[in-house]
Amino acid sequence: MTPASSWTRRHVISLWDVTPAEYDTILTTAASFTEVLSRRNKKVPTLQGQVVTNLFFEPSTRTRSSFELAAKRLSADTLNFAPGSSSLSKGETILDTAKTYLAMGTDIMVIRHKQSGVPQAIANEMERLGTNVRVLNAGDGQHAHPSQALLDLYTMCCLLDEKNPRVELLKGKKIAIVGDILHSRVARSNIWSLTAAGAEVHLAGPPTLLPKGFANFTQPLNDQTNTDIPRDLQMHWQLEPALENADFVMTLRLQHERMTDHMLPSLREYHQQFGITRERLKLCNPGVKVLHPGPVNRGVELSSDLMDDPELSLIPQQVTNGVAVRMALLYLIGGGR
Amino acid sequence: MTPASSWTRRHVISLWDVTPAEYDTILTTAASFTEVLSRRNKKVPTLQGQVVTNLFFEPSTRTRSSFELAAKRLSADTLNFAPGSSSLSKGETILDTAKTYLAMGTDIMVIRHKQSGVPQAIANEMERLGTNVRVLNAGDGQHAHPSQALLDLYTMCCLLDEKNPRVELLKGKKIAIVGDILHSRVARSNIWSLTAAGAEVHLAGPPTLLPKGFANFTQPLNDQTNTDIPRDLQMHWQLEPALENADFVMTLRLQHERMTDHMLPSLREYHQQFGITRERLKLCNPGVKVLHPGPVNRGVELSSDLMDDPELSLIPQQVTNGVAVRMALLYLIGGGR
Amino acid sequence: MTPASSWTRRHVISLWDVTPAEYDTILTTAASFTEVLSRRNKKVPTLQGQVVTNLFFEPSTRTRSSFELAAKRLSADTLNFAPGSSSLSKGETILDTAKTYLAMGTDIMVIRHKQSGVPQAIANEMERLGTNVRVLNAGDGQHAHPSQALLDLYTMCCLLDEKNPRVELLKGKKIAIVGDILHSRVARSNIWSLTAAGAEVHLAGPPTLLPKGFANFTQPLNDQTNTDIPRDLQMHWQLEPALENADFVMTLRLQHERMTDHMLPSLREYHQQFGITRERLKLCNPGVKVLHPGPVNRGVELSSDLMDDPELSLIPQQVTNGVAVRMALLYLIGGGR
Repeated sequence: MTPASSWTRRHVISLWDVTPAEYDTILTTAASFTEVLSRRNKKVPTLQGQVVTNLFFEPSTRTRSSFELAAKRLSADTLNFAPGSSSLSKGETILDTAKTYLAMGTDIMVIRHKQSGVPQAIANEMERLGTNVRVLNAGDGQHAHPSQALLDLYTMCCLLDEKNPRVELLKGKKIAIVGDILHSRVARSNIWSLTAAGAEVHLAGPPTLLPKGFANFTQPLNDQTNTDIPRDLQMHWQLEPALENADFVMTLRLQHERMTDHMLPSLREYHQQFGITRERLKLCNPGVKVLHPGPVNRGVELSSDLMDDPELSLIPQQVTNGVAVRMALLYLIGGGR
Repeated sequence: MTPASSWTRRHVISLWDVTPAEYDTILTTAASFTEVLSRRNKKVPTLQGQVVTNLFFEPSTRTRSSFELAAKRLSADTLNFAPGSSSLSKGETILDTAKTYLAMGTDIMVIRHKQSGVPQAIANEMERLGTNVRVLNAGDGQHAHPSQALLDLYTMCCLLDEKNPRVELLKGKKIAIVGDILHSRVARSNIWSLTAAGAEVHLAGPPTLLPKGFANFTQPLNDQTNTDIPRDLQMHWQLEPALENADFVMTLRLQHERMTDHMLPSLREYHQQFGITRERLKLCNPGVKVLHPGPVNRGVELSSDLMDDPELSLIPQQVTNGVAVRMALLYLIGGGR
Repeated sequence: MTPASSWTRRHVISLWDVTPAEYDTILTTAASFTEVLSRRNKKVPTLQGQVVTNLFFEPSTRTRSSFELAAKRLSADTLNFAPGSSSLSKGETILDTAKTYLAMGTDIMVIRHKQSGVPQAIANEMERLGTNVRVLNAGDGQHAHPSQALLDLYTMCCLLDEKNPRVELLKGKKIAIVGDILHSRVARSNIWSLTAAGAEVHLAGPPTLLPKGFANFTQPLNDQTNTDIPRDLQMHWQLEPALENADFVMTLRLQHERMTDHMLPSLREYHQQFGITRERLKLCNPGVKVLHPGPVNRGVELSSDLMDDPELSLIPQQVTNGVAVRMALLYLIGGGR
């Protein structure tokens, strides 16, 4: 296992200030867990006797299962907070819920909330109280989804060098992010990691689903010091310039509520203009791969046959790598013994 | 533990083509797990480090708990897919959900769905993709519920020879299946196993709840080759001829929606005509036993006092044996080490 | 670990007949688990291979998580019964649900139900059937919530002598219980343990939320023999006499439905009359501490700043001690090896 000695971060809330060296530590650690996951017995005793609590205020089966499995494979005990039948409906505040799980003996909290800033607020409170609890953001509002961006990063780097994934592999690669950029915490987190890696990032989507300006768009929530806005970002209202000579195409999930918000005319029209198809990928570099954070609306963000084509789609690898990357994050912030 | 070397089946979807030798392997394996379950520490390391995912698209506490406990006692890690808060409501297809859990590292999928054929479709997809994932059908539509029929089989065989349960013990035994045969996946699966064992199976129920013809009724979903329709099946619109000299009476759960479907006048009338009572059991052979897959509507399918009579009811044994039989199935398809 | 040899109780349903010696056994056992919980690896193999089933007919995230974590730290396997998707909605009786989990192999049932008497009824049935299943009441109707009262007891005793908590420490201490006494199972259970410890218990609340008479109020459900009504109980319609020279102030959760029941004019008025504030605590003895079973309505039962003051509030300790006390209960009734 990678020595976690070079890792000093207690929480992973956003990627805005993660350094290339830190990315490489995550990638190398994830690679060692990928090796563990290739064994018949996929468990290691790393977090034996520790408690990982999934505080999913916004329900999610997929991401919660991935974190739960990662925790179990590190031999942690897991608790799942179920918002439906919870104290929240009894008037308890979010911080009080978190403090209840703190008092029960939680070591790591994995937090999802539909409002931006909740994981940061809980992490701040845990620090203020002098606790040793670590916080992982599993998606907050339209702010950040760091574990998703990290598994995307890991998946792309592994494709380029399976044995030795590292961010420098993405230097100068052209990466198109397509779809509802404006509302996407996945896009925001990916922009930080991809620009840090030196990739050339192109955003494409309908004008109503693109941010007005970068500065405001990517500003970190609690930012005191950062003045560097990611460079090398380019924005397009058409799909074609983003796809031309791209090495990776990252599609984003289209929320159905965008239609009722009158931000889109129809799914059909969206697919005609921005749906990724085999034909359109001919604009890209040879060997181009398509990613999607899931769940996919088949025939909307990308064509159904393309999703099932192992030569073009990295979607199954993303899910598989999600477990290894989340094991790496739990291992690194959990003190890694 | 039984060597699983003679077992070649990768999935258990239906019982239509299970051979007597395979039934005996399941029964013998279940018997060895019944022995394990009599110890204080009921866990064995068989599936240590493997992941069993319960994909219960149709909710069920009872069957899910039984499978979950079986998996935990084999030391597997378990994931539970909760349809309420899932990606399904976000437009994901069932196969994509299954492939997501495949990519996360699931080794065995236990699948329940209200539509017939879903477990088979998922198993087909897992094979097509060249994966090593195994599928257990935990009940699909009106098609099959193999683990229920196998625990019924095991319960009856154990009654006849606790130490050495085997299908030949049921040869020539008269078994009455009473109730809503038409809609029952439990009945369908039991018909395959009981006729394979050589039992004489009698079906009894109101005409509206009996199938019109056997061929169509018991035809396997994906059947290419099977032309043998189970023999020795007899059908009755009255209860009495089914009960006469019966050795076992299997009652089926009556769904309340049958009333709103106008298939039944009332629960009270159903009980008067087809409810099993102490009095009616006098028509049967001495030592007759009653089974029910649960949950029971007391005073409908059978009288309340009869359900609680350990001399007549095998219902608690069915539940207990359910865990051992499901451990056996997980063990056999899981590679059994 | 404490030898559990002096412990003879099979179930913990209510505290009405628990002796001071038994309380001390629970407190001493909990203290040894508090020591376990201070280690990095907080697991012990006590209940390895045993099954603890949480039958929470009334949903509760907080108490269920606490019991679940306690069971996991004793290395038990846990099953969670989810009422939403359960057989109950299919017409099964509560006793039949319990018997199903019995038949599956449950060793200990932790039961919550909105109706008083359900845990006792299930325990009676388990005894009648000659089973070895143990029952812990996790809250039934307005009857009892013994694990909550025991963690309150443990928290207060630990404050007075951390190393050697015992009930005699509370002898002569004045304890105010404030709020909706009438509907509170927490208050009822606390009254039994605190009077057994020799504390001077004062109840305060609006007349509509106070019991009419003690005899009827504290009568145990199944009581055949008990004629002693707890002594030293005093009741006040004003807050001040209860607080004067109090050593501990136990606040109770105010259910919002009391407003719609027309038992209270408004939350604001309730807080003005019975809300605990820093100012009002000046009436108490120096070193007074405030407790609350959670979840708290901030600014209703107590002021928000007071809840967060570690000098005054014991609320986080209550949650932490809840796990240790529940481990102690599971250990003691589970046979304690």
